[in-house]
Formats: sequence, structure tokens, C-alpha cells
Amino acid sequence: MVLDTQQNVVALAGGVGGAKLVYGLSQVVPPERFTVIGNVADDFDLYGLHISPDLDTVMYTLAGVANPATGWGVADDTWNMLDMLDRYGEDVWFRLGDRDVATHVLRTMWLNEGHTLTEITARLLERLGVRCQLLPVTDDPVHTLIDTLEHGTLGFQDYFVRHRWQPTVRRVWYRYAEQACMTDAVAGALSDADVIIFCPSNPVLSIDPLLVVPGVREAITARQGVCVAVSPFIGGKAVKGPAAKLMGELGLDISPCGLCQYYAGLLDGLVIDTSDQDQPPAEGIPRLVTQTLMQSSEDKIRLAGDVIDWVGRLVA
Amino acid sequence: MVLDTQQNVVALAGGVGGAKLVYGLSQVVPPERFTVIGNVADDFDLYGLHISPDLDTVMYTLAGVANPATGWGVADDTWNMLDMLDRYGEDVWFRLGDRDVATHVLRTMWLNEGHTLTEITARLLERLGVRCQLLPVTDDPVHTLIDTLEHGTLGFQDYFVRHRWQPTVRRVWYRYAEQACMTDAVAGALSDADVIIFCPSNPVLSIDPLLVVPGVREAITARQGVCVAVSPFIGGKAVKGPAAKLMGELGLDISPCGLCQYYAGLLDGLVIDTSDQDQPPAEGIPRLVTQTLMQSSEDKIRLAGDVIDWVGRLVA
Repeated sequence: MVLDTQQNVVALAGGVGGAKLVYGLSQVVPPERFTVIGNVADDFDLYGLHISPDLDTVMYTLAGVANPATGWGVADDTWNMLDMLDRYGEDVWFRLGDRDVATHVLRTMWLNEGHTLTEITARLLERLGVRCQLLPVTDDPVHTLIDTLEHGTLGFQDYFVRHRWQPTVRRVWYRYAEQACMTDAVAGALSDADVIIFCPSNPVLSIDPLLVVPGVREAITARQGVCVAVSPFIGGKAVKGPAAKLMGELGLDISPCGLCQYYAGLLDGLVIDTSDQDQPPAEGIPRLVTQTLMQSSEDKIRLAGDVIDWVGRLVA
Repeated sequence: MVLDTQQNVVALAGGVGGAKLVYGLSQVVPPERFTVIGNVADDFDLYGLHISPDLDTVMYTLAGVANPATGWGVADDTWNMLDMLDRYGEDVWFRLGDRDVATHVLRTMWLNEGHTLTEITARLLERLGVRCQLLPVTDDPVHTLIDTLEHGTLGFQDYFVRHRWQPTVRRVWYRYAEQACMTDAVAGALSDADVIIFCPSNPVLSIDPLLVVPGVREAITARQGVCVAVSPFIGGKAVKGPAAKLMGELGLDISPCGLCQYYAGLLDGLVIDTSDQDQPPAEGIPRLVTQTLMQSSEDKIRLAGDVIDWVGRLVA
């Protein structure tokens, strides 16, 4: 059920939560009209391999090879390289599947050959038969750093994977963000976008590292089209992961109103779950109340369709 | 049954054939007395990973993790990274197992950090609990190149794996060998060696790339101790692999006499199979006639014990 739309849709997405809506959107928006802008601030090097967890989660999802149980990694994967690294006495805290490693090996080889992350991501998608675009927000390094009460400053994966996002967060920042350049492809996609959708990703860890890259906010606000966010919160809680806990620790408000404040100046609409419909509305921001919990493929496609339908009416 | 020997034993070994005797020797020579000098002229880069097939075959054998079915690679391995590379449209002609990849990933990372292949090999062995030494003959690049009738010049793995050693060989040479330096560790091991054993590896493809590194021949002949070769041929045939075919194409004689000629000036003794006992002896070179076919662990240990016993009597 691909909508017969002439609208260019751009989704800003982080990892697993965002990828669910990306999947739905990919089923209702024609591929030549659909672009995902992905987060690279979680990227890191492990055993000399360049790993882009958020790009990979979105890519595997779009290619239909994602592990359905976890949402990240590749389906039917094994862990024998990791098992051997363990035999070698390495600290194997990051779950690198054997199939997943192929992606990192190719990416690292092509980066070392001088290709950009944008070119490499396009090549990987093409090889997996994905027809829409996935664009890293920048080809420059940006690193999410987390200042914690218990362990001081941690790299993102150290906080998220090794410490299972349990430490108390005092501050989040994005090293090198000021020097990073938005790519031409991202600038073009944002400028051509009729609809921009902030996926239900972690606002601080997944969407903000996109918005802090110089030029991205301006490119979003300079356009005529609409920009809407799908709230990652349901009944005041995150579906999965650290979003609610972390935002609470940072003193941020995760109500629909708080979310509109967080994305102040960017949103023309907010999509919230039915369980939050009694929350006070944010002034001047239209909202769509629908079921935002995405468990099955049908949930994802239905929510994507609802959002696209509603945005069409917002524009009209 | 480790022999109570005060003799320092150095084995020169290539891949699978050599590793069989290395295994046997490791069971009869105390680890602090046993050193293997390994071939690096088959090394190559694949997907940005540095692969040392011969060092790995010997290392896995010494560590007891070698794949018993093939002789190379790691036991109980899977091929899922390769399968995913195939999905990405890569030409997956080289069989990289998932467990095996861990070795290449660590080696490549450490090489990029500036460590030498000698240091890295020692570290890998230590981590696998191997107590004897395995020394790459050089830390410099040396590449075996094969000039073939059908395909012109091929890199070693291209000839050996991709073309399954079927092309007709016109010439073999070792690029960069003249500029390579024998490591201090190899120089020390050869100078301290009471016994040097050329394992039943391919003389042209495995032993020669060790001997062509400047200083190695001189270090072997400058010593007091004995140097013996175990013939890789049985009844005028190679047990496995291209040795007999390739040496025939190069016009080399694979009889016991021919082998002594090939290793002229180096050998104090030659070990041949019982099936070759009627072959004419080489003048002035003592020989041990025994069963050299190594199928079981017992075969390997028995042959190693025979060779060490006999060499002890040669010295006395």
C-alpha cells in the first residue's frame, strides 16, 4: 500500500525505535520520495573497525535483514568471532555478530580507501537492494559524550552497552559537533522536503545529535513544508531504552508539552499515543492522537500511514 | 612423552604439511627448547585485514584449535561473515571463517598501532596458551609470485586458492625478498639451534621463501649443529597440494637425491618415506627411512620422535 504521493518525505531517525517508524514509512512512501537522515554520533571504532550502529539498524531494517528479536543486528546471526576474541582474552562487551561484522569490515576498508561515509552508506544500501536514501547527517566525526555521576564522562557505547544505561546522567554533549559540516546531500534533502518527521527516537541521544550539526536547524526552519515529531513516550514512559530515565535525570519534561518545548521552533505538529491524550496540549501545535506502540509490521505501517495522512491534511 | 633434551630445536615450516610435524615436535620437545620459524610470503590483505595463512595454521595447530578436517582454519568455525559479504556482492573466493576472522582483526589492529608481526604473533600465541615460540622469518613484506602459462603472474593466494593450483607454473619468485631483514629473534634462534628441521612443507612455496631472506642461509650454515629435512614426498608424489606438480613444471627433481640438490649446502641429513627407500642415496647425506605419512596425532608424534632420536645419534 504505497501512497500515491508527490510529497518528499524526510525522516530523522536514531536506532531501534526510530527504525520501526522508518520501516512503516518505507512501506507507504515511494522510495524515490523517501530519505532517512541518520545519526552518526554513536559511531565508534572497535578492534580497528568503524561501527555505525544507528545507520546499520536503519539499513538492516530497510533491507529486511534486521534481527526481529532485538531490532538491531542481522537476523540469523552467530557470535563466533566474538567467541574467539573472548578466547584471546579480549573484553567482548559489544555484541558483534558474524554477519554484522561484514558491514563493518567493508565500511572500514572503504573509509581507509578515502570514500566518505555518505558514499559508503549509499553503496551498502544499493548492494542490499534498498531503493530509498539513508544519509548520515555529516561525514565528519561527532561523538555523543555522557557525563555520569558514578563513572564520570563515558563514550556513548560505554554508557549504553557496557553500563546498560544505568549510570545517572548529569550532562550530554556532542564533541566536535560545532566543527562538523552537514553534507550537501542532507542539505538538499531537507531543502526539498515537503514533510519532515522526527521519528520516535531518543530526543537527546538520537535526534539532538542531528540538530546540533551546524545548518540542520536552519535548513528545517527555512522551508515551506511541515515538520512533525512522533513522541517516543507512551503514558509518560519510554517504550524501551533510556529516554525517559535520562531525560528525567537531565530535568527535562517528557510530556507532549515538554516535547514541544524541547523541539521549540521546529515543530508544526506532534503525534502522541492515545494514553497521553488527556495531557495538556501545547499552544499552537496541532496534534494527532493515535496508537504509537509499534510491535508488529502492521503496527508500523498503520502508524506511518496515519502520520502521512494527517500531515497531508496539515499541509492542505 | 616430552624428551628430556637439552637440545634447542628449530623447525622451518610452511602451512598444513609442515604444521603436522610441528605438532609432533611440540609433543616431544620441551616448549622452552622449541622454536618454529614461519613463512610470511603467503601473507596478503583481504577486505583491509592482514592475513598470515601459514603463521595461523601453525599457531592454531600448536594451540589445539585447528580444524582437524582441513588442517587450516579453526575447529567448529562458521562462515556467516563470508555469507554476508556474498550478500553484499563481494567475490568471496577466500574461505574466511568467523572464528578465524578474530585473529585477522586483532593482528590488523595491532599492526596499525605500530607493533611488529613478531610481537603480534608472540602475543596471539601467549593468549592461546602456547608456550613454544613461533617467529615470522621477517617483519618486512615478502610476496611469493607465480608466473603461470594460462594467467600470467598471480599472487600466491590467487594461484593457490582461487585457481586451486591448477595453472601451469613457469617461474616462482619472492618479491621484496632482497630488501627483507631477518628478525633478531630468528637470527638468535638459528644461532642457538642444535637441530634445525625443514618440515615436510612445499620446498618452493614454503621453505624457499624462508631461505631467500638475506642472512637465513648463512645463519644455518654458520652453526655447529645439524640441519635435516623431512621430505614432503611419498613414492614420488606429494601427500597433498601442489608440491609435486609445481616442482615438475619447474623441471625440479623430487626424488631424495633431487631434494638434497635443492637444499644443497644446507643438509646434514634427509628423512624419507619407506616407499622411497629404493631410490638412490645422495652422496654424503645420511638418511632416515621411516613412515612419513602423518594422518593421526600418533603418526605425527611418532615421526617427530623418530626424527629427534635419529638427529641425536647424528650429533653423537
